[in-house]
Amino acid sequence: MSEDKKTGRGRAEEWWQTSIIEMRPGVIRLRGYEIQDLIGRVSFPAMIWLMLRGELPSEEQAALLGIALGAAVDHGPQAPSIAIARMAATCGVGINNAMASAINVLGDVHGGAGEQALSFYGDIAAAMDGGTPLAQAVKTRLDRFFAEEKGYVPGLGHRFHPVDPRAPRLIELTREFAARKGKTIPLNIDGTTAVIYGELGFPPALTRGLFVLSRSVGILAHAWEQSQQGDRNKGPLPREWLWAYTGLPVRPFPDTE
Amino acid sequence: MSEDKKTGRGRAEEWWQTSIIEMRPGVIRLRGYEIQDLIGRVSFPAMIWLMLRGELPSEEQAALLGIALGAAVDHGPQAPSIAIARMAATCGVGINNAMASAINVLGDVHGGAGEQALSFYGDIAAAMDGGTPLAQAVKTRLDRFFAEEKGYVPGLGHRFHPVDPRAPRLIELTREFAARKGKTIPLNIDGTTAVIYGELGFPPALTRGLFVLSRSVGILAHAWEQSQQGDRNKGPLPREWLWAYTGLPVRPFPDTE
Amino acid sequence: MSEDKKTGRGRAEEWWQTSIIEMRPGVIRLRGYEIQDLIGRVSFPAMIWLMLRGELPSEEQAALLGIALGAAVDHGPQAPSIAIARMAATCGVGINNAMASAINVLGDVHGGAGEQALSFYGDIAAAMDGGTPLAQAVKTRLDRFFAEEKGYVPGLGHRFHPVDPRAPRLIELTREFAARKGKTIPLNIDGTTAVIYGELGFPPALTRGLFVLSRSVGILAHAWEQSQQGDRNKGPLPREWLWAYTGLPVRPFPDTE
Amino acid sequence: MSEDKKTGRGRAEEWWQTSIIEMRPGVIRLRGYEIQDLIGRVSFPAMIWLMLRGELPSEEQAALLGIALGAAVDHGPQAPSIAIARMAATCGVGINNAMASAINVLGDVHGGAGEQALSFYGDIAAAMDGGTPLAQAVKTRLDRFFAEEKGYVPGLGHRFHPVDPRAPRLIELTREFAARKGKTIPLNIDGTTAVIYGELGFPPALTRGLFVLSRSVGILAHAWEQSQQGDRNKGPLPREWLWAYTGLPVRPFPDTE
Repeated sequence: MSEDKKTGRGRAEEWWQTSIIEMRPGVIRLRGYEIQDLIGRVSFPAMIWLMLRGELPSEEQAALLGIALGAAVDHGPQAPSIAIARMAATCGVGINNAMASAINVLGDVHGGAGEQALSFYGDIAAAMDGGTPLAQAVKTRLDRFFAEEKGYVPGLGHRFHPVDPRAPRLIELTREFAARKGKTIPLNIDGTTAVIYGELGFPPALTRGLFVLSRSVGILAHAWEQSQQGDRNKGPLPREWLWAYTGLPVRPFPDTE
Repeated sequence: MSEDKKTGRGRAEEWWQTSIIEMRPGVIRLRGYEIQDLIGRVSFPAMIWLMLRGELPSEEQAALLGIALGAAVDHGPQAPSIAIARMAATCGVGINNAMASAINVLGDVHGGAGEQALSFYGDIAAAMDGGTPLAQAVKTRLDRFFAEEKGYVPGLGHRFHPVDPRAPRLIELTREFAARKGKTIPLNIDGTTAVIYGELGFPPALTRGLFVLSRSVGILAHAWEQSQQGDRNKGPLPREWLWAYTGLPVRPFPDTE
Repeated sequence: MSEDKKTGRGRAEEWWQTSIIEMRPGVIRLRGYEIQDLIGRVSFPAMIWLMLRGELPSEEQAALLGIALGAAVDHGPQAPSIAIARMAATCGVGINNAMASAINVLGDVHGGAGEQALSFYGDIAAAMDGGTPLAQAVKTRLDRFFAEEKGYVPGLGHRFHPVDPRAPRLIELTREFAARKGKTIPLNIDGTTAVIYGELGFPPALTRGLFVLSRSVGILAHAWEQSQQGDRNKGPLPREWLWAYTGLPVRPFPDTE
Repeated sequence: MSEDKKTGRGRAEEWWQTSIIEMRPGVIRLRGYEIQDLIGRVSFPAMIWLMLRGELPSEEQAALLGIALGAAVDHGPQAPSIAIARMAATCGVGINNAMASAINVLGDVHGGAGEQALSFYGDIAAAMDGGTPLAQAVKTRLDRFFAEEKGYVPGLGHRFHPVDPRAPRLIELTREFAARKGKTIPLNIDGTTAVIYGELGFPPALTRGLFVLSRSVGILAHAWEQSQQGDRNKGPLPREWLWAYTGLPVRPFPDTE
């Protein structure tokens, strides 16, 4: 590119460069494929894969991705994200705004368990690649966890479910998939989704994004259901209830400030 | 429910009632189905349908929904939503936050064309149901549009593409689907997705939510690509450029305010 | 500007033109004033005024703006915005993200009453300017409201307070201000803030923005207080409570989909 | 509280407890003060202080807080937050939504410099409290920074301004304030605001919230200015420009997936 172009339009177009999408009037290409070649030929999970990874998945890979995405769509209105979507839907904003306020809270604590679990498994896998036996690799990583970190071991246990009903079914399906690839996958509970995403080759930081795509479905369903009920300014508690005030008792405004 | 319960926990649980998800320790049911029965048996688009509509779709319906969702995943970084996702990804926030800031702008102008198109078609269909011929129904609605509204007829034309490359392919697939249902579907251009969603029975206001699910894929892909490039505080223009100032020339601060 | 420049950097800089801020290395000017001339000389409300209106306010104007901004900072955690801020603060996102999710719901229903009230008053004022007596102008506008619109007359009454404790004090102060300008201001209750903003010359659509600036203070205070309590994933109800499920009873997955 | 109450409404009201605001019909108290006692008596910065800190500030403290808040209101549309606010304002969403998308990106990189600077200064101050001379404390902390962290020393230098025009004026005012308190404040450049917030006793993590309150003013001003210009779907570059595509060249869809 000429230096002249660098200071003009070319420099600006370079500033927004991407390898995801190519467009000209009448042309849209995603990752090198004409969009009209993709429409009707690839499933929605395959399209997600293509957009995020750059290549089309195998049918098996797309199917497993779809399964993992479907497994995490909702966990009910006690989850802050779902409650936020429902409250937002009563405040006179668009359904996309209600979804945004909700997705926005899928942070390290609410949406990051899969990402953390996958990193955790990655550390164990790396130790095993270096010759450490599985049991030792797990023990070492857990020891480090309890020494350094607080909170919950990601992917293990669940604050609400004694056994998470989603995990065994996911593990079963993952095993079928893994068997074909000649691997065994370590057991786990809540982080099974993380195992699937890891098996499929997604980097940990991207799996939070996959969780957002998945949970967005429940967020939309709840925002929509709420919006059909006609409430205005839905608060967290029944309208006739308040909150407990725990601060200073009433006091006079000081004479001189 | 007893009055006593109404003033206690029961009243609060009633406040958050939903018909989407039932949960007890060890149990998650979506729309009456055990989640372990759904995992691995329904595609991701079928799960989306179930969550939003309450019943499982036919395979054809799920396939067409998946096609429509896949067709709108991205339109490049000149779209405000994609640009926002990329800029946000350089500001030190989580990938869910970057997605939220982007999804948040899929409002009436940026994300509402499908919803508006579907309402538009609905008006025409209602007139036809009342006996008005198609040509007259379209003319009447268009006359009303040009008399009352400003901007662009939703679903017709595109500011960038002379012919939108996505539309003919979608129309072709829709016709195959519609043929099986013994209906003809009126031609259109950009709003073909709206036709599909309408054919599938989604109310207009919910189609904006479907567009959010679809475009979220592109938003995530771009946020992720950008986050891998290591920029900090990416602005809209190359760093060495500024903006044109069009306001008052410099002036002294007034002596007495 | 030369055509050549139009196709290069100049065109891009023109795309982002603004009359609010002028910047060069070592220079920041807001509305024509050097920032170092403003710092320490204008109050925070005066800075808000300058940014939004382009000129410095009088001391009286700045004081009244500050009073109105201070009056609406909080209405407790039963307000969806405050509840959202507190829940978000427990999800592992930044304090700015918690604030954004909350501010995002200050829409037509939750944050728009002032804007609507000011439009309402504007219609009445316009009728009075056209010669209609006050009582008739109010009656006509109210008649139109009850014929066309649903919900609540903006600025009148309050779902929680029989008499809003903020209104009388604001009205008193507004009268003092108005008296100096030789005007009388019509009485009202919840929309007193709207009266102040209107008296000060803010267009209705901008007053929603002023409400956001004001309520942001409460949103931040609550997000901060919550973040100091160490909860994780705070839901809307006590952790051991659920929600009422009102949907279909459990059913088997259909044999053939 | 009785156990009975714990399982009923009292438990729910306890769940949302706060020491910020007390409310009953006809009563609003902030931090123990009747709101009608506050309105008209405290400046907007003093109200911010009261809400965040629990006590009224002195006039000097409120004035200095107002100065710091006023100094950071805007840095122009090359800042991602301002660009996002302007683009959002053209997408058919409310002004509060435009503000939320923008505020949402004031994360560690875009909005966290002050917070980081204050932590940095806190480490130095702690070392000095332990007897280390200033020069040594600074050197030790800087050595640790260059060994451990990447990026920029917070509060020092500016990517755009050789000398930030805001800093000297802020330092001057801070010194006046500090002189009255019998302290000297170490010089700095961009982090002067952090010094002020630190001097005033705000914890580092809360100063990001103060920055949000401040920058919200510029975000609102730009969103408003943009909304008056009537653009639709404003992208980051002039409409007739695109972006550079750097991905794979066009390729045929594979025969068998």
